[in-house]
Amino acid sequence: MGKLREECGVFGIWGTPGRDVASAAYYGLFALQHRGQESAGIVVNDDGLFTDYKDVGLVNDVFTPQVLSGLGQGNMAVGHVRYGTTGNTDRANAQPIVVNHVKGRMALAHNGNLVNSYELRQELEMQGSIFHTTSDTEVISYIITKERLTAGSIEEAVNRTMDRIKGAYSMVLMSPAKLIAARDENGFRPLCFGQCADGSYVVASESCALDVCGAKFIRDIAPGEIVIFEKGGYRTIRDHCGKKPESFCVFEYIYFARPDSVINGCSVHEARLQAGRFLAQEHPVDADVVIGVPDSGLDAALGYSMESGIPYEIGFVKNKYIGRTFIAPGQKSRENKVKIKLNPIISVIKDKRVVVVDDSIVRGTTSARMVKVLREAGAKEVHMMVSAPPFINACYYGTDIDSQDMLIACNHTLEEIAEIIDVDTLGYLSLEHVKLLTGKDTGFCTGCFSSVYPTETPQETSKSRFEMKISEAKQEKLPL
Amino acid sequence: MGKLREECGVFGIWGTPGRDVASAAYYGLFALQHRGQESAGIVVNDDGLFTDYKDVGLVNDVFTPQVLSGLGQGNMAVGHVRYGTTGNTDRANAQPIVVNHVKGRMALAHNGNLVNSYELRQELEMQGSIFHTTSDTEVISYIITKERLTAGSIEEAVNRTMDRIKGAYSMVLMSPAKLIAARDENGFRPLCFGQCADGSYVVASESCALDVCGAKFIRDIAPGEIVIFEKGGYRTIRDHCGKKPESFCVFEYIYFARPDSVINGCSVHEARLQAGRFLAQEHPVDADVVIGVPDSGLDAALGYSMESGIPYEIGFVKNKYIGRTFIAPGQKSRENKVKIKLNPIISVIKDKRVVVVDDSIVRGTTSARMVKVLREAGAKEVHMMVSAPPFINACYYGTDIDSQDMLIACNHTLEEIAEIIDVDTLGYLSLEHVKLLTGKDTGFCTGCFSSVYPTETPQETSKSRFEMKISEAKQEKLPL
Amino acid sequence: MGKLREECGVFGIWGTPGRDVASAAYYGLFALQHRGQESAGIVVNDDGLFTDYKDVGLVNDVFTPQVLSGLGQGNMAVGHVRYGTTGNTDRANAQPIVVNHVKGRMALAHNGNLVNSYELRQELEMQGSIFHTTSDTEVISYIITKERLTAGSIEEAVNRTMDRIKGAYSMVLMSPAKLIAARDENGFRPLCFGQCADGSYVVASESCALDVCGAKFIRDIAPGEIVIFEKGGYRTIRDHCGKKPESFCVFEYIYFARPDSVINGCSVHEARLQAGRFLAQEHPVDADVVIGVPDSGLDAALGYSMESGIPYEIGFVKNKYIGRTFIAPGQKSRENKVKIKLNPIISVIKDKRVVVVDDSIVRGTTSARMVKVLREAGAKEVHMMVSAPPFINACYYGTDIDSQDMLIACNHTLEEIAEIIDVDTLGYLSLEHVKLLTGKDTGFCTGCFSSVYPTETPQETSKSRFEMKISEAKQEKLPL
Amino acid sequence: MGKLREECGVFGIWGTPGRDVASAAYYGLFALQHRGQESAGIVVNDDGLFTDYKDVGLVNDVFTPQVLSGLGQGNMAVGHVRYGTTGNTDRANAQPIVVNHVKGRMALAHNGNLVNSYELRQELEMQGSIFHTTSDTEVISYIITKERLTAGSIEEAVNRTMDRIKGAYSMVLMSPAKLIAARDENGFRPLCFGQCADGSYVVASESCALDVCGAKFIRDIAPGEIVIFEKGGYRTIRDHCGKKPESFCVFEYIYFARPDSVINGCSVHEARLQAGRFLAQEHPVDADVVIGVPDSGLDAALGYSMESGIPYEIGFVKNKYIGRTFIAPGQKSRENKVKIKLNPIISVIKDKRVVVVDDSIVRGTTSARMVKVLREAGAKEVHMMVSAPPFINACYYGTDIDSQDMLIACNHTLEEIAEIIDVDTLGYLSLEHVKLLTGKDTGFCTGCFSSVYPTETPQETSKSRFEMKISEAKQEKLPL
Repeated sequence: MGKLREECGVFGIWGTPGRDVASAAYYGLFALQHRGQESAGIVVNDDGLFTDYKDVGLVNDVFTPQVLSGLGQGNMAVGHVRYGTTGNTDRANAQPIVVNHVKGRMALAHNGNLVNSYELRQELEMQGSIFHTTSDTEVISYIITKERLTAGSIEEAVNRTMDRIKGAYSMVLMSPAKLIAARDENGFRPLCFGQCADGSYVVASESCALDVCGAKFIRDIAPGEIVIFEKGGYRTIRDHCGKKPESFCVFEYIYFARPDSVINGCSVHEARLQAGRFLAQEHPVDADVVIGVPDSGLDAALGYSMESGIPYEIGFVKNKYIGRTFIAPGQKSRENKVKIKLNPIISVIKDKRVVVVDDSIVRGTTSARMVKVLREAGAKEVHMMVSAPPFINACYYGTDIDSQDMLIACNHTLEEIAEIIDVDTLGYLSLEHVKLLTGKDTGFCTGCFSSVYPTETPQETSKSRFEMKISEAKQEKLPL
Repeated sequence: MGKLREECGVFGIWGTPGRDVASAAYYGLFALQHRGQESAGIVVNDDGLFTDYKDVGLVNDVFTPQVLSGLGQGNMAVGHVRYGTTGNTDRANAQPIVVNHVKGRMALAHNGNLVNSYELRQELEMQGSIFHTTSDTEVISYIITKERLTAGSIEEAVNRTMDRIKGAYSMVLMSPAKLIAARDENGFRPLCFGQCADGSYVVASESCALDVCGAKFIRDIAPGEIVIFEKGGYRTIRDHCGKKPESFCVFEYIYFARPDSVINGCSVHEARLQAGRFLAQEHPVDADVVIGVPDSGLDAALGYSMESGIPYEIGFVKNKYIGRTFIAPGQKSRENKVKIKLNPIISVIKDKRVVVVDDSIVRGTTSARMVKVLREAGAKEVHMMVSAPPFINACYYGTDIDSQDMLIACNHTLEEIAEIIDVDTLGYLSLEHVKLLTGKDTGFCTGCFSSVYPTETPQETSKSRFEMKISEAKQEKLPL
Repeated sequence: MGKLREECGVFGIWGTPGRDVASAAYYGLFALQHRGQESAGIVVNDDGLFTDYKDVGLVNDVFTPQVLSGLGQGNMAVGHVRYGTTGNTDRANAQPIVVNHVKGRMALAHNGNLVNSYELRQELEMQGSIFHTTSDTEVISYIITKERLTAGSIEEAVNRTMDRIKGAYSMVLMSPAKLIAARDENGFRPLCFGQCADGSYVVASESCALDVCGAKFIRDIAPGEIVIFEKGGYRTIRDHCGKKPESFCVFEYIYFARPDSVINGCSVHEARLQAGRFLAQEHPVDADVVIGVPDSGLDAALGYSMESGIPYEIGFVKNKYIGRTFIAPGQKSRENKVKIKLNPIISVIKDKRVVVVDDSIVRGTTSARMVKVLREAGAKEVHMMVSAPPFINACYYGTDIDSQDMLIACNHTLEEIAEIIDVDTLGYLSLEHVKLLTGKDTGFCTGCFSSVYPTETPQETSKSRFEMKISEAKQEKLPL
Repeated sequence: MGKLREECGVFGIWGTPGRDVASAAYYGLFALQHRGQESAGIVVNDDGLFTDYKDVGLVNDVFTPQVLSGLGQGNMAVGHVRYGTTGNTDRANAQPIVVNHVKGRMALAHNGNLVNSYELRQELEMQGSIFHTTSDTEVISYIITKERLTAGSIEEAVNRTMDRIKGAYSMVLMSPAKLIAARDENGFRPLCFGQCADGSYVVASESCALDVCGAKFIRDIAPGEIVIFEKGGYRTIRDHCGKKPESFCVFEYIYFARPDSVINGCSVHEARLQAGRFLAQEHPVDADVVIGVPDSGLDAALGYSMESGIPYEIGFVKNKYIGRTFIAPGQKSRENKVKIKLNPIISVIKDKRVVVVDDSIVRGTTSARMVKVLREAGAKEVHMMVSAPPFINACYYGTDIDSQDMLIACNHTLEEIAEIIDVDTLGYLSLEHVKLLTGKDTGFCTGCFSSVYPTETPQETSKSRFEMKISEAKQEKLPL
């Protein structure tokens, strides 16, 4: 329904003896499911013996009890969930990727997008490398493997690789003897770690995955940091730390991350409440009730209510059985299509001046339908508040964007959008406030709102490369 | 997680030419999915030609696009969703039931439980009838069929059948030429109907299923009423109306129904807000924050906040990917098991005195774990408010109850329960207030709270019958 | 590929303590798979507790290890395989049928077709009976149930039922305490029983199913006989024996039955060898090689070779991975379509005068394509020998026939057929010889060849009934 | 049931405009299914756009109509079937392999085993190459890719690759513009090509796959030959031809290949007939009947009968529904286990002196059970003839062998084996005769019988490598 998509979630566990690392990975990925619904994978490492399983589908569809028990016992595991595009899904692109190289095996799970993967890939192909997928992950695994030929250790190979790869990456990898987590110098994507009562270490994209494993949060991995979990505990390599200003993706707070996660010291729920408070300050309106669009608009709606004093109410019921596979056969009425997912509670809406809070407007069509549903339910006025600035630029760091042609804010003024979606007031969060969601401006990437990017962007060739990617994607397209 | 289960949801549509009745049934059942997750079925009637499909599974698993298009076009359809017991599921018991009899075909979908089905079945068997299932629905279809031999019409046969069957039933049935809906004299289970802009009539267990079909709510079907939809419109038979005091199941408002449904003139959401308000009046506490247990505790929590003035907050994030098939391999920690489904937002809970509102406590184990999670998250005090009275008796009208041995309120005093689940305050809604949830006491069944039943209960033989049922259930048990 | 289809295979086991009756039924049905590929079902009886499973599919698709182990242990079981029509398959029509009636439970599996089921059904419906399927089996179970009301025992009810049902039936049924097998007075369909070393009794459509259970063949059940297996052994009721001349379906020997089965004292393989010998006597030709069409033409081809002295050879290789689900996408060439299934061995055919033996010609199209393949492979002459007389009439006793419009022998003379399928010689087995396949004419039904039927045929209403059946079949049609 | 397994079958088509190459590949692979039942894959090339699908399963399970139509149209396709080991199956090892390299894309399907893959892989890994599978195919694709960096064309890269890879390989590969087939210098595995009436070229492991595509056989690809199919026809590179004596795997004639295939100018069926004739010359016995063990023993049995004059008969009926997934629950009796698959025709066996012909004895257990079944069926004498010499050595060229510990002929004398399997006579085909199966000794590999290998065998490291392979295999093991 017109949302941006995060590319992935990663998970790793270094288990103490007796720990069921496969089950831990399962629960961790289940908690990270919102970061990717296309495919799921787990690799278990039993003293150098790797067992892996990955497939297209949700975590608990892919990992049936038999599959999970088939992964066996081990002392480490890494896992991955991958996002779902609208159309084709590709088993070949599922992660973690497992490779055999001269020094043994490696399993790699990665979240983010490189900005120089095209150049790196071309260079590797000129040396005779072959690629089975179109993913950055395979590029990264090649470079680590090449560096490993001369590096004294796997972590040294990762460290050298970080000199060469540019862009966004939060990755977890596993050699026969070590679990390694690394985050790019800008810190675009989240990555944190914690420890369980039994001594096991868990690393994950978000802290909510630590919670389900019973791991106590230790800290976020710093931008540019490499953390090595091995016999005897963990240590870090900080050669790439502090080299660049931090530029964490602010949309993680606004939409991607789970509200119960804590990132860079700030609760996602609190950041969203704050977004709502800022909205109330920026766009005060005279209204009877504040409602949020489930699920991601609820926190900001509550914040708006707190700041404005307008009562918070539950305005929509979301059908909890709706999944990504829901099909809408023979449905002509677009309003009904909204109602199938989100049905209004008439008694809350009828004859009221309603403030409705959502996290974003992408194409505008969903918003327009929702407003129509509210008006049919009897709303006297509809004031829409968006807990983010207008979304007008491409993202090069691991999210899935429609082309600019599709973005309503690229082609219309605020007034036009308000008219198109038929609201009495339309308020977006300001660029100034979005940087203060966590209380202080610690450095955020706001490229998609501001067009100011913290890294070089993919070079001139990027256009043809983009086109190539499309044709490659077509080539990759599996029938099903 | 220790909830009661509703037995079913029913749906029917009398379509005007060109209406895709199969798709309408699909959407209607999808909206009623919360009333039954075990199996789903649709029968399409194309001028007397019945096409049906039913299977174990959720609505959008059973009705793939191919299956749905295979149902073809027709002028009427009936549909059914059936609840899911913990263990075995049985394709044979899926509804609607389709039977061939002397006057043609009939399809029947039914929600509720008869209190005299054992006697009726015995009588039928003595006449040489054979049964393929253990369901009341087959009993009802037999009686209608027998009455049809001498009755002048199918609706007359239904009317006569209502003289003989006792207990709870909201049913939708279809002869080659008519769609008929009927509700028992006590009106235990909900049933309402509406009309679409194209003139089609829709009948369903709850109004939320009318909404997704674009049908405007007309009214609830009265207790004892029969409504016949046929060429030229609808008419009613009211011979059984007003014969008994209304006794609508109050637990429909508290837990079973969807908050966006309107039943007997009252929004379910409003009834739950009221439950929360009553709770605040009955059990005022000094606290910092009010949170609800998702999803069914949220409305009452908001009502408690409104009445008490204590701020409402979002205390738990529910993993929206959890389904009924979720498995919990290798999970020893029960607290983690709660967190997999419901993870607390620490910043909301920490160092706070928390009021947590839930709709019921069945065995107490889930509540105890949830309280432990809150305390671990730093709650200074936990005050649990339950938006229903203690649940202490059997239900004979179509809900699934654990034996009394399992019900915590049967075996423990209020103080003991508070100690077992480790809360500072435990407040249940009073029996007096529960009858006033909709603003006026229009007559409710509160048998499960009060042990006062509005009908005869299954007779002396009921115990042996109950035991027989268990052994039959065992016999029915399909391997899978 | 244009073959007639048998309607069913039945199986029953009365097990001694410790016998795994579910597995025995599984193996028995697997051996009877050639008699029906549409659906399979097993009911296990554990001292009155019935557990059943049936589904659309082949025996080893339906009965996975989990499903089979879910059937549990028991002291009796009945099983059934059902034939596959080209198009729709219907789970509801799968057998055995399990019914609950006043005296308990009954499971019934049945092979054959009644000639008076329409009349019986009408009578039952007039008494208020309801039907869930369109099968004769449900009619039979109703009559047994009605008779059981007044009969002193289940076997007496079966005995009385045999007074009322007319036509072909070989059935196995199970009450809580007894396993009962019965065969119609004409003995149309086979049914035999045997005993295992552990004392268990096995009853099955063909002796090959006894072999896989380790049961030693005792004897065929006589036409009209009822055999009751119970505590202490077996006994028989012979009230209906000898009332009618035996009329066993001769096509069982020619095509339906497995060559390793022994029926009425004669090996099916030997009967087919004999058909080949008769063909050689009736239609001697000058040729170089005799080949059979796999699989059912091989035995008769060998017989032809033995009698004629012309060398037997292997002329076709059948792709053993071909199943009923094989699809032929984008295939325009009909000759290739034959080759996918049956590819000729060129060295055997080339420059040879070839006698090719098949068991029947139905529409002629398959034969024509096969002959074309032989000619392309270099056959100088093709002499086709058919081990049955021309097939020209309907069968009312449990086989699936195309309408007469489709039967090539109804519309063409022998010479025309020879020209259509392009053979040098076309020889059918004579009606005289077909009755002597087992060495002596013990009484066969040859209705489909001779139009002489051993029973009344379905009465005047049969045509409209047939049409009704089609429309019912359409109604029954499940989407899938 | 104790058979050797071929590793693979390969297929390629260069289609003329309008040809449905995906369907052709489907039919071709279906005809080659006997060469591999584990997995199947097809890659379609539409002017450089590659679409592929591969999965674990039989050809017509993997390629449903939707999947096949999803492959779309194209001008070329390659396909592959892979053999099934007893236990784990691995989707990652399915072929064809598709790789992206500097000069574009390549799809590769391969049958055989290299003897120097370990050395090649080690060398590649020392250069930083990474491997996703443990298959030789990935090694070959790497070397072609590396050579392609400097070679002027893909066929030149293949030609150079053949200088480096040693052992058995019959491969089909596809660049954006060319279809290329190549066979190793010894010609271990079969590979042939033909042309359809529409001008399309088809290349396949066996000629039976040409037949189903309507392709007329042109010729076998010569040992060492490369054939390039491209715009304008085909041409060959013969730089590696004639460098080594031909050493075609004789077991292809005895067991692996389909009897309707013609390889190196000789019909497989004729070679098997000849094996039977030689057996009759080498081991004449006084007997009443000759039978073959279905399916692969039938041809040799017929040959034995022809030479000896002892009548040929059909002794066993093979259950044609048995598949590789057949499970045998709760089966204790091993004789019954044989009967489930192969049931004897008593009338043929009883009181006879029986010659039974099989193609091989591997462990001996299956043979022993079969003999027991024959004796129980009443055979007076059992003379077993094996249409191959005793199997006593490892094969390095692409077949799956049990360790020598398991081979009965490694551990027992002829007399001992005859006693173990309880036969009156045991006759193996002599090593001299096996080389003359096709009429002349054109050069065969008989390494598994004679221990004389036509190439270097895997070097000293081969043992540790073998052990490594096992542990790798374990690592690869997917849970399923």
